[in-house]
Amino acid sequence: MERAIDTQMEDLKKMILLMGGHVEKSLAQATAALLSRDLNLFKEVHEIEKKINEEHIKVDQACMNLLAKQGPVARDLRMIISIIKINNDLERMGDQAVNISYSGRDYLGRNPIRQLNDIQKMSEIAGRMVKGSLDSFVRGDVEKAREILKMDDEIDGLKNKVYQDVMAHMKTASDDVEAGLDLILIARNLERLGDHATNIAEDVIFAFTGKDIRHGGKFG
Amino acid sequence: MERAIDTQMEDLKKMILLMGGHVEKSLAQATAALLSRDLNLFKEVHEIEKKINEEHIKVDQACMNLLAKQGPVARDLRMIISIIKINNDLERMGDQAVNISYSGRDYLGRNPIRQLNDIQKMSEIAGRMVKGSLDSFVRGDVEKAREILKMDDEIDGLKNKVYQDVMAHMKTASDDVEAGLDLILIARNLERLGDHATNIAEDVIFAFTGKDIRHGGKFG
Repeated sequence: MERAIDTQMEDLKKMILLMGGHVEKSLAQATAALLSRDLNLFKEVHEIEKKINEEHIKVDQACMNLLAKQGPVARDLRMIISIIKINNDLERMGDQAVNISYSGRDYLGRNPIRQLNDIQKMSEIAGRMVKGSLDSFVRGDVEKAREILKMDDEIDGLKNKVYQDVMAHMKTASDDVEAGLDLILIARNLERLGDHATNIAEDVIFAFTGKDIRHGGKFG
Repeated sequence: MERAIDTQMEDLKKMILLMGGHVEKSLAQATAALLSRDLNLFKEVHEIEKKINEEHIKVDQACMNLLAKQGPVARDLRMIISIIKINNDLERMGDQAVNISYSGRDYLGRNPIRQLNDIQKMSEIAGRMVKGSLDSFVRGDVEKAREILKMDDEIDGLKNKVYQDVMAHMKTASDDVEAGLDLILIARNLERLGDHATNIAEDVIFAFTGKDIRHGGKFG
């Protein structure tokens, strides 16, 4: 027999997936705006953020209800606590996409200083990390979650490359200092997006194995 | 008669306060290292981070236990959920202090480019925000929590000032581009610390009033 809590957990998962889809779209739009130099696309990022914020509150409320009414234990409880954390990470990913849109708008108002290949790569990896971390969550796929952790090194490496390249350029072209800082901040936001996906992957591993691998698994 | 859950809640609050004390100390040490140009002080930041990480896991475990064994509802439940979130914010504040120590170490290896008055001010405000947000949590002081939200504007203003000043300097002194970026990243970390304290203040307001004021209170 299906338990009431199972149906409610399925609903919660669906809400998280919907929200994750909005985060992915928001990141994709912010990056597309930057690459195609189309300021209008930034507006959509802000529209999507409103939805993400609304979903953020709704998921929290649904989790509180479930905790209060069902008094879940063991794996159900771990799952709900993980959802509360994933919810927070998704909301902050939405904020990062908005931050990208602000720096991106500033950047597009200045002389372009370089190809944005690395930024594009970072955005693609971040997008795959968001999608992958949520896939691993929905399927309970712990191996997939572990792959996400590895992708984080890739995005960190690209961020460092952007920092180095942009600083080298700033040294030779003082007029481009502001534009350079815009790109550095965008790279930083993308790296943070990757960090949040990593948090989600860690939560998935905890939810499905009960193993706390945060902080190197030293204390879990 | 005192309920078992009350004693356990008090223990949880004490753990959060201990952790908050470590975050404050970590921020203070990172800033002191920078201002006094004493690299040794950065080591302590890393020592404290280990403690914070350990506490992070312990608080989570204690919350899970409490949820599983006591099946709390209403205000108790809101309080525990808030503690889970506050715990996450404190841990990330610890990360920001560590980030400051990395950029700070880089900065001290270069030619100093300016007085660090604004950075010092930002650190002081961030420290007061950490302390104030936790005070408001322990006392259930919602008014105090609202004050924290206002302090966040102050720290944002200072961050923008640091950005502007440092960029102006970078334009005239290309040798100082790296040092300038170090300071910009430190200012950014301090602003993020303030953001986390703001999150805590919002959680306090939710825990004690049941009112969700996040995202402008539009959805709570």
